[in-house]
Amino acid sequence: MQSIRLLMACPDARGIIAAVTEFLARRGGNIIDVDQHTCPQHGDFFMRLEIDPEGFEITEDAFPAVWAEVAARHRMRWRIGWPGHRKRLAILVSTAGHCLNDLLFRWHTGELTAEIPLVISNHDALRARAEAAGIAFHHLPIQPNGKAEQEAQIKQLIEQTDVDTIVLARYMQILSPEFVASYPNRIINIHHSFLPAFAGAKPYHQAFERGVKLIGATSHYVTDDLDEGPIIAQQTLAVNHRDDIPDMVRKGRDLEQWVLARAVRYHIEDRIIVSGNKTVVFD
Amino acid sequence: MQSIRLLMACPDARGIIAAVTEFLARRGGNIIDVDQHTCPQHGDFFMRLEIDPEGFEITEDAFPAVWAEVAARHRMRWRIGWPGHRKRLAILVSTAGHCLNDLLFRWHTGELTAEIPLVISNHDALRARAEAAGIAFHHLPIQPNGKAEQEAQIKQLIEQTDVDTIVLARYMQILSPEFVASYPNRIINIHHSFLPAFAGAKPYHQAFERGVKLIGATSHYVTDDLDEGPIIAQQTLAVNHRDDIPDMVRKGRDLEQWVLARAVRYHIEDRIIVSGNKTVVFD
Amino acid sequence: MQSIRLLMACPDARGIIAAVTEFLARRGGNIIDVDQHTCPQHGDFFMRLEIDPEGFEITEDAFPAVWAEVAARHRMRWRIGWPGHRKRLAILVSTAGHCLNDLLFRWHTGELTAEIPLVISNHDALRARAEAAGIAFHHLPIQPNGKAEQEAQIKQLIEQTDVDTIVLARYMQILSPEFVASYPNRIINIHHSFLPAFAGAKPYHQAFERGVKLIGATSHYVTDDLDEGPIIAQQTLAVNHRDDIPDMVRKGRDLEQWVLARAVRYHIEDRIIVSGNKTVVFD
Amino acid sequence: MQSIRLLMACPDARGIIAAVTEFLARRGGNIIDVDQHTCPQHGDFFMRLEIDPEGFEITEDAFPAVWAEVAARHRMRWRIGWPGHRKRLAILVSTAGHCLNDLLFRWHTGELTAEIPLVISNHDALRARAEAAGIAFHHLPIQPNGKAEQEAQIKQLIEQTDVDTIVLARYMQILSPEFVASYPNRIINIHHSFLPAFAGAKPYHQAFERGVKLIGATSHYVTDDLDEGPIIAQQTLAVNHRDDIPDMVRKGRDLEQWVLARAVRYHIEDRIIVSGNKTVVFD
Repeated sequence: MQSIRLLMACPDARGIIAAVTEFLARRGGNIIDVDQHTCPQHGDFFMRLEIDPEGFEITEDAFPAVWAEVAARHRMRWRIGWPGHRKRLAILVSTAGHCLNDLLFRWHTGELTAEIPLVISNHDALRARAEAAGIAFHHLPIQPNGKAEQEAQIKQLIEQTDVDTIVLARYMQILSPEFVASYPNRIINIHHSFLPAFAGAKPYHQAFERGVKLIGATSHYVTDDLDEGPIIAQQTLAVNHRDDIPDMVRKGRDLEQWVLARAVRYHIEDRIIVSGNKTVVFD
Repeated sequence: MQSIRLLMACPDARGIIAAVTEFLARRGGNIIDVDQHTCPQHGDFFMRLEIDPEGFEITEDAFPAVWAEVAARHRMRWRIGWPGHRKRLAILVSTAGHCLNDLLFRWHTGELTAEIPLVISNHDALRARAEAAGIAFHHLPIQPNGKAEQEAQIKQLIEQTDVDTIVLARYMQILSPEFVASYPNRIINIHHSFLPAFAGAKPYHQAFERGVKLIGATSHYVTDDLDEGPIIAQQTLAVNHRDDIPDMVRKGRDLEQWVLARAVRYHIEDRIIVSGNKTVVFD
Repeated sequence: MQSIRLLMACPDARGIIAAVTEFLARRGGNIIDVDQHTCPQHGDFFMRLEIDPEGFEITEDAFPAVWAEVAARHRMRWRIGWPGHRKRLAILVSTAGHCLNDLLFRWHTGELTAEIPLVISNHDALRARAEAAGIAFHHLPIQPNGKAEQEAQIKQLIEQTDVDTIVLARYMQILSPEFVASYPNRIINIHHSFLPAFAGAKPYHQAFERGVKLIGATSHYVTDDLDEGPIIAQQTLAVNHRDDIPDMVRKGRDLEQWVLARAVRYHIEDRIIVSGNKTVVFD
Repeated sequence: MQSIRLLMACPDARGIIAAVTEFLARRGGNIIDVDQHTCPQHGDFFMRLEIDPEGFEITEDAFPAVWAEVAARHRMRWRIGWPGHRKRLAILVSTAGHCLNDLLFRWHTGELTAEIPLVISNHDALRARAEAAGIAFHHLPIQPNGKAEQEAQIKQLIEQTDVDTIVLARYMQILSPEFVASYPNRIINIHHSFLPAFAGAKPYHQAFERGVKLIGATSHYVTDDLDEGPIIAQQTLAVNHRDDIPDMVRKGRDLEQWVLARAVRYHIEDRIIVSGNKTVVFD
């Protein structure tokens, strides 16, 4: 994460890669890694570059203006991540702590290169785990008819702490469309099924009733359509007739924490471009 | 497959295992393998035994009468497979040959211990593969408004050849409820998605549109509800944004043939008990 | 874990299952689950039963004497686990905390039904994690030429706390043959490779040098032969040319904690029979 | 496979990507796909480009001379694959036919975009399968002390048919160092274990004896050091105590054919760069 990450999406055309790499080479930008994809169906071009900051002659402040001409010529959506700027995460939880425990441990080891200024919950159950990691824990219970108010409190905390990414680590509340609209492609959820199978409530119960031979977990960006946002990562695990619902819940915890951690890592390392309702993940 | 396979399902109660094993021991029946499962949710008891035919004192003809008392006392559904009796399969195909090629190769190596008296298709495309294996190939095209007639032809062939199991190895026709009702738990299908996701037509197209990160395949017994029958086996495989629909089709072939072969093997080795809309698979 | 677990291994013979199940049925022992295996190569018979304690007429104290006749007749090695007796684990660690964190979280959720009276380490680094879980942490550094003394301290702690199982959760010391001999099939290790590949030191470095496309982890019982004990569980994960050694270490942590947790669960639920240098795992 | 594939390896330096992409852009070469990797350990740079032949102004004959300057400046090893030139494979087999059956089926469907002018075997067992695919089958038995002579016959056939790649699809003979030296990085083998575990003969027997919980398969380029060549692809599959050696052989067939097919596909699509004893696989 010492490198500059430059991501772009635009209509495909001849010479984009040459234009970009030549632009960078002229300004001392040594490319450490390039990953690129063209979607023939939709004629979309996607690219992610890692650039060595050593020797790169454009400063963070100057970049947008200097880059504007290339970006405009190719009608790019683009963004850039600079080494000094770690993503700032708020983790939202309810009572199940496995994803929180896992994320905090990965953060502790340096695997997740982000700042985590706070954990927010509608319950007080996971305070100890957050505080053991030295992270502020905010208990924001939801009063009867008080959901809007609670969401306003969350928003306030997020603004105060300069958070840019919200991780729903088994947060068992449905966020309002207004809340979701405030953070496009910045809220990451973990759903405990292989979406689109078993959307909605109690997916392990649904899976048990249907008699599937695999259970799954899906991490996705949150949109207005519940469980319908762009998928970032998925994984499955075998089950059989011996696995009743508690077994699925137990096995599923491993899946959930693993899939969510992967999605969070992709997000904070600027590896994801959202395009329509799908993701391009450069891993 | 030199052993006798005895399968049973009944309401759970004390002493079933002892009653069964004592019954067998008294009659010289040495148990080579026992696999048993009790479902606490529904109070169901399931058991599969493999018995050494050497020394077993009950003949095939006599077994039902001798066993009747134990079976009745525990209100069992049961069935027995004798060493001499291999399942007899009809394989139905259309134009995609990967599952047929795979099944015939496994049959050729002795991995699938069944008889395959015939392959039936609504197209003539796979005649050479079947005949190269020494298996009769029947081309039964579907005329306009002729589906009922074609199904009647299939039924006739199945009866003539004493087939007990129908394998839909990418047979791209929906069988009529009447046909399906004639072969309960005896028609095995392969669907090219991780059901219940992407039921119906063109699952890889659906998967591509949704942007999933895994594709799957599901083998199940066919019932009146399309793609809703009891699931026997499932598997998934990772895909990413680089995989367009032809890539999914290509990767999916591996999944499909592997999952179907597994389901067929479970079926012919008497490893499956259907219970409600689910399967118990003793593997 | 509310059931009685009865495990046995003996030379194969006719009628063992009937003898055992009849023995139990006569004494009110309802069998909830039976899993059995006969190894044709070596003529060995293995069985694991779960018995409902409700209605079972033999007490824990009386069992050995009552059972002795059946066990002797079939020359059985056997053991029994009673509902009240949870395994008691000592977890040994050095500085890497991922396996400890994972095991303690699983214990906290009730997934690992064991007692963990203490964590022992040759470093002080993981004290906080153990103590946050309410578990005593013992820092036993190794002085120059002081290994024997430190092992004596470990043994003393283990005896004082009535521990029956030692879990090496990335404990980076080689235990002496004397120590190992004191706890046969009671020390569980996690090795960070797919054994027998890359035994010994720095397996990820070895894997990187060899250019393998998968990394692995292996959990096994510890014997005198380093990395040669009976294998309990293994798993692999894809790597490619982009993964350097730190990436392998990062990905490997997931494997290691997952494989070790599985092995510990099998052990504490009395699912393992060691036979020669191999394990039968009834899962 | 309608695109031009350009692969290069060289010492890492600033501006290589820009130099290459600018070179191509100036000559009408539109880059469809770029995949690049820098190995920080050894300072190596690797890149694979797919170029649209439409509009590319350099002909196949002219390319080496025009490209020479860029290649020399960066001290590149490089190669280029043109759309018209499919790899030409000789498949060598003995008696086990699963890999041959699988490769020929994939070739038949168009998944493997190569020519297969001949199949060579030291046995006559698989003649029918090759000939059913319309491929010449050469039975070259090995007489006592006749190995050198048989290899000379193989070489002659390979030269006559203009073969560039030799696929050992369970060919159970060890090729001489002289033979191997003639085809560097052009002989692909499948070994039925997860190398480096269980190199040498009878790997499933070795795996059974060791009691591993996974079996594997490894595809690699053949070098003088038996089972030590650069690994292209590997996969593993779970086994347990119920799996005896014939079960491992059966399960292993799926692994072997799947891993070998993947390696062959990578090779014929020019996705592999060998570097030292390792491979970079751009998939």
